[in-house]
Formats: sequence, structure tokens, C-alpha cells
Amino acid sequence: MREPILLTPGPLTTATATKTAMLADWGSWDSAFNDITARVRRNLLGIAHAGATHVCVPLQGSGTFAVEAAIGNLVPRDGKLLILVNGAYGKRMARIAEVLGRPFLVHETRDNEPADVARLAAILAADASITHVGLIHCETSTGILNPLEAIAQVVAKAGRKLIIDAMSSFGALPIDAREIAFDALIASSNKCIEGVPGMGFVIVEKTAIAASAGNSHSLAMDLHDQHQYMEKTGQWRFTPPTHVVAAFDAAITRFIEEGGQPARLARYRDNCDALIDGLTELGLKLYLPRAIQAPIILTFHAPASPNYDFQRFYQGVRALGFILYPGKLTEADTFRIGCIGAVDRAEMLQAVSAIARVIREQHLLA
Amino acid sequence: MREPILLTPGPLTTATATKTAMLADWGSWDSAFNDITARVRRNLLGIAHAGATHVCVPLQGSGTFAVEAAIGNLVPRDGKLLILVNGAYGKRMARIAEVLGRPFLVHETRDNEPADVARLAAILAADASITHVGLIHCETSTGILNPLEAIAQVVAKAGRKLIIDAMSSFGALPIDAREIAFDALIASSNKCIEGVPGMGFVIVEKTAIAASAGNSHSLAMDLHDQHQYMEKTGQWRFTPPTHVVAAFDAAITRFIEEGGQPARLARYRDNCDALIDGLTELGLKLYLPRAIQAPIILTFHAPASPNYDFQRFYQGVRALGFILYPGKLTEADTFRIGCIGAVDRAEMLQAVSAIARVIREQHLLA
Ligand SMILES: Cc1ncc(COP(=O)(O)O)c(C=O)c1O
Ligand SMILES: Cc1ncc(COP(=O)(O)O)c(C=O)c1O
Repeated sequence: MREPILLTPGPLTTATATKTAMLADWGSWDSAFNDITARVRRNLLGIAHAGATHVCVPLQGSGTFAVEAAIGNLVPRDGKLLILVNGAYGKRMARIAEVLGRPFLVHETRDNEPADVARLAAILAADASITHVGLIHCETSTGILNPLEAIAQVVAKAGRKLIIDAMSSFGALPIDAREIAFDALIASSNKCIEGVPGMGFVIVEKTAIAASAGNSHSLAMDLHDQHQYMEKTGQWRFTPPTHVVAAFDAAITRFIEEGGQPARLARYRDNCDALIDGLTELGLKLYLPRAIQAPIILTFHAPASPNYDFQRFYQGVRALGFILYPGKLTEADTFRIGCIGAVDRAEMLQAVSAIARVIREQHLLA
Repeated sequence: MREPILLTPGPLTTATATKTAMLADWGSWDSAFNDITARVRRNLLGIAHAGATHVCVPLQGSGTFAVEAAIGNLVPRDGKLLILVNGAYGKRMARIAEVLGRPFLVHETRDNEPADVARLAAILAADASITHVGLIHCETSTGILNPLEAIAQVVAKAGRKLIIDAMSSFGALPIDAREIAFDALIASSNKCIEGVPGMGFVIVEKTAIAASAGNSHSLAMDLHDQHQYMEKTGQWRFTPPTHVVAAFDAAITRFIEEGGQPARLARYRDNCDALIDGLTELGLKLYLPRAIQAPIILTFHAPASPNYDFQRFYQGVRALGFILYPGKLTEADTFRIGCIGAVDRAEMLQAVSAIARVIREQHLLA
């Protein structure tokens, strides 16, 4: 059987050319590999239009490692981080601040409500000790889109610094550093750029990286050191995931050839539309209002039937070649399905057919 | 041209079957991938004969991340770590303890002197506040072998805990948990097991992992949480480097088929002998006495000729298909050459011929 298609928010289905880029071994000290690292860093800055203002610091590990590195390096021990929470990844950022002993507070909205810009302005006005604001751009636990532009404006106007977890949005949704002020933007290799997992990166504003020396709570996650060493030698401080980096480079090349962020967004929008239209027609209900649903990952209510069991449903759809994702909500029974990866409308229509068949066979119609 | 052979201490040359294992995409939530994770963990424990006494906790990132995680999790804030240093990786362990704010002290021997067992016993006897001893088994900055068995005995007899950085020795040199007491043994995917880089792992003694709750300085590097979550769900806490894990699994399968640690050591010994004999015949001098030189990575004095320039030498040998490694010593001008990776005597003899040719062409004979 063909290998299943991942309709998950990363790891996701990657292009064959991305995977075959891993069929070589590189010396991490060799100039052939240094060239790859330099190109990846340059292209990532380009995608964010940040070449003039920011640097790109890649980091070994998963996306969470990069989020932790950003908090640990950029929020000084006498700073204070306000985190806008409406899902699991916002909560994770708060947990990181807690473990690292960085002063923080949380402003939480419900998981189907975007971050509240007016409240943010009021909180910042009332608490002068807040130095940084942490935002999850697309909160992957539902797929909700938070209003980045408006938040960035409020934060900048209040003279505070913005840290954006753009893990699941970078490359698909527009983020333009010439128009949006941020100290850090965090993402990873295995989301909308469609590489394989194993590294994250932080796009850091130049004065912020310079000011961060000595802040880090960790040696391995010291972004300032990683950046300095990379600038000096072209190399990573500690052994890089060479094959992951090479695959990421290939994925970025494909991204640029496809037409960059606007083309990627158009494809994901089309995937998203095909899924929402198809699954709605089957009687499934989207969890979020469509206006605040990002075309990245969709949350659907579980079929209402008492016959529904996520594991059985998952295995049924998997046997037909598609991997779904469990819901991440405590209050509602949901499942998730991703619009991202090296897939287009054809795979989405096949997935809808597969889900239709399983709903029929498992008698999940209400 | 054929891709160059890496004679470096990891990333190293991997088998084609190891790399082709990366030509699929896995859902990190799917049982197919959980099976891979479980098999990798079980087999790694088996290699250390530690199945009855220890657990294996894999971690995203490079080997340094795993070392930092071991220190941060296992040495409590009121503990004290004695680090036996005779090279760069011992110094790095000390730097980690410093950044993490864990009380530590260093006993340093020269980079061509193995750790001093008698001195260790005396230091432990004199300082009851030392709770843990940190050792680099094979100190990769020279390739020197430290006397693990004798050190482990002294540490156990003194009632202290041992943390072994076995990054460059695990799988090649014998380490048997039934005979050697240790709280933690740290290694990574891209050394003697011959996988690709992107993950490390810590083999932790069962009561030590249980006692480590709440110690971690980091969320992403919390080994206790990683272990608990993995035991409960079969999954990694944060996105795993799926392709790296699959390649590691393939590499471990190949390792077992080849005959496990004894066969791996025999092949590396043969590689080592071929290199030392060949390069000595060319007039190059091994830095360490042969008795304390591990068959992992060799340090040679740079050719004495004033014509010698490492970059030119490196490029010359590279053009003939072999990647060398720079020396890591401050006091002597050296270069390094690895014995490890999916290579055997044939490649070693070719490498010797390539080096001979470059020595001739660049007039490096004294
Ligand atoms: C918004 C967001 N932040 C953080 C993460 C964590 O990334 P990782 O699982 O690679 O550690 C994710 C992963 O899905 C995410 O979507
Ligand atoms: C003994 C030893 N410890 C630690 C490390 C660090 O590993 P990494 O470069 O994967 O972070 C190495 C790498 O060569 C090593 O040989």
C-alpha cells in the first residue's frame, strides 16, 4: 500500500525531492555544508522580509526548543512577559516562562476567541513592568488565527517587544518585518515550509540579539552564542542535524519556486476550502467560525453519534491512506485535519471520500 | 565525483540503507512511528545490557543537549558534580554545570593523560559534598580513552553517582551496566551506531530518573517529563525528528546484524590499525601513546614542514575524496582522522594513499 498521507500539523507529507536531499552525508565542518546553512538562514530572513533588520538563528531540536530559547534569551531575568493565551501552545509558552523563572503573566481568551487587542492595550497601559508580549500567531490547538498586525501595532505603540510563535503560520500567512515590529519570530522546519522535523529557528531583531548576551538559562539553547559562533565560522556550535538541514534547504528551494508565501497560502486556502466544503456536506461541523479559522489546521466536532470512537475512526481513515490528528480541547470532543504539506486539492478530495466511507461503515451519521 | 567519505567523529559516513530509511514521512502520533521509537529505546538499552536496571530516554537535538539534560536533571541544585577533565568535552560539561548553576568542581589532567583514578579516590574521600562524578569515556578532542571500569569502581565504592559522556564510545567500546554502576550514560545517534545526527539519548538508572522530578532547569530538556510521557503514550513529548529516528532504527538493525558491539569494535580497531600503520609509515606522528588511544578518532601531529597549512592540506585531501577533521588542541598543531562510520580497511587504505599524495604534492615532508 502507498504510504499514508499525513493530514497533521507537522510532521507532514513532504515532497520526494525534499526527502531525497537526505541521501548524502555532510561534514558539519565542511564548506559544502556551511553553504547550505548560509542559504537556509538567508532565505528564511527573505521570507519574513527581515534581511535588513533581523538575523536568523537556527537551533537543533523541535519547535518547542526554539520557543524556549527565545524566551530564555530575549526576556531578561528582570523583564516581564505577558502571554496571550487561547490554546495549548500559549499555555506551553507560559509553562516555559515558569520553568525558566522569568516573570510572566497571562491574558487568556477562550479557545474560540482571538486575542483581545483592546484588552491588551489596557493591560500594557496599566502595567509598566511588562517588557515583552508573547503571541501564538496561529494557535494550532484549534487552528484559530490571532490578529498579528493589530497586536504588533499596540505592542509597538506601548514601547514593548513582541515575541511571535509563528510555528504553524510561517511561510503560509504573510508576516512582513518591514510592516510589523517584532523582537523574535519562531518557527520550525516541518510546518508550512514543508521540511522534515529536527530543527527550529528564531528570527531575532538585531539590537535584541546583541543585547541578549548572558541571558540564557542553557548552554545548548544559547541563541546569542549560537549566532556569534555562526557569524564567525559559518558553522553550528554543536553538531547540526545535517540531513534535516539539507532537506529544509531543498524544501525552501521548492517553496521559492512554487511562488513563495502567496502561492503557498493560495494552495493551503484551496486545500482548506475543499476540506471544509466536503466535510460540511458530510454533516460534520467546523469548531471555529470560518472568519477566524486559519487555512492551516481545521478542528471539527466529532460526529455526534454514540457509535463514534476516535481510535476506531482514526484507524478506519488510516486504512484508507490518511492520517488525521486528535483534537486538543478539553471542553469539546473534536478531531483535527491539516491543510498543510506537499498535498493539494486532489488529496483533500480523496480524504473527504475516505472519511465519508468510514462515517458510513461505522454508522456515525446522527 | 563520488561524495566524499567523512573521516570525522560524527556526522560520519552512514550506510545507504540508513539514509534510505528516511524516504518516508511518519505521523509522530501514529503507532507505526511509536513502534520505531519503542524498538530504538529497547535496543539501546540492550547494547548497554541495561534493560533490567535502566531506562532509555531519547531527546531531540545534538549530543550536547543530552549532556545538558543529564546534568540539569540528575544533579540536584544542592548536589555537587566533580568533572574529570582532559579535553574539550570535559570542559564543556563544566561549562554546562556553570550555566545551569549546579555546584561543581573540576579535576583536570593533561590532554594526553587519562583521568587519574587514585587522585579521584582521594578527592572523593576528602570532599563528602560531592554527589556525582562526570566522566568523558573517550575524550574526542584527542581520542584518549579514560579508564571507565576503574573509575566506576572508585565512584561506587565511595557511594557517589557516575554520569558518563559516552558520546563517541557507545556501541564501539564495551559498556556493561551489569558490571559498571552508572546513573547516566549519554550518547547520540550519529557516532558509533552510525545513524544521522539530530537526537541524543540518556540511559538513566531507574531510581535516578524517578528521583529527578522537578530538577530540570528547562522544559524542553526535562528528561523526567520526557520519560513519563513516553511511558504513558509511547510518543515523544514534542515533535520528534521522525526521519532521524527512522534512520537510527535502521542503523541499529544493521549494528545488530553486523554482530553488535564486539564486531563494531573489531572493525574500528582494524580501521585504526590501518590508519596508524599507513600514516606512521608516511612519517606522521600519532599524538597519544598507542596504549591510551581509543580506536575512534586519532590525533596526529601536523607535518613539521613550514609548507604545511591545515586548510590547504584539508582541501587537497578533500579533492581526493576524504574529509579530515581539524585538531582541537591549543598546545600542539594537530589534525584528526576518524576510524568510525560505515567504512572499513579499504577506505582507510585509500585515505592513506590520498594523504600520501597530498604530502608529496604540497611538499610537506620535513
Ligand atoms: C504554534 C505552535 N507552537 C509550538 C509548537 C511546538 O513545536 P514542536 O512540536 O516542534 O516542539 C507547535 C507544534 O505543533 C505549534 O503548532
Ligand atoms: C565526547 C563528546 N561529548 C559531547 C559531544 C557533543 O556532541 P554534539 O556535537 O552532538 O553536541 C561530542 C561530539 O563530538 C563528543 O565527542
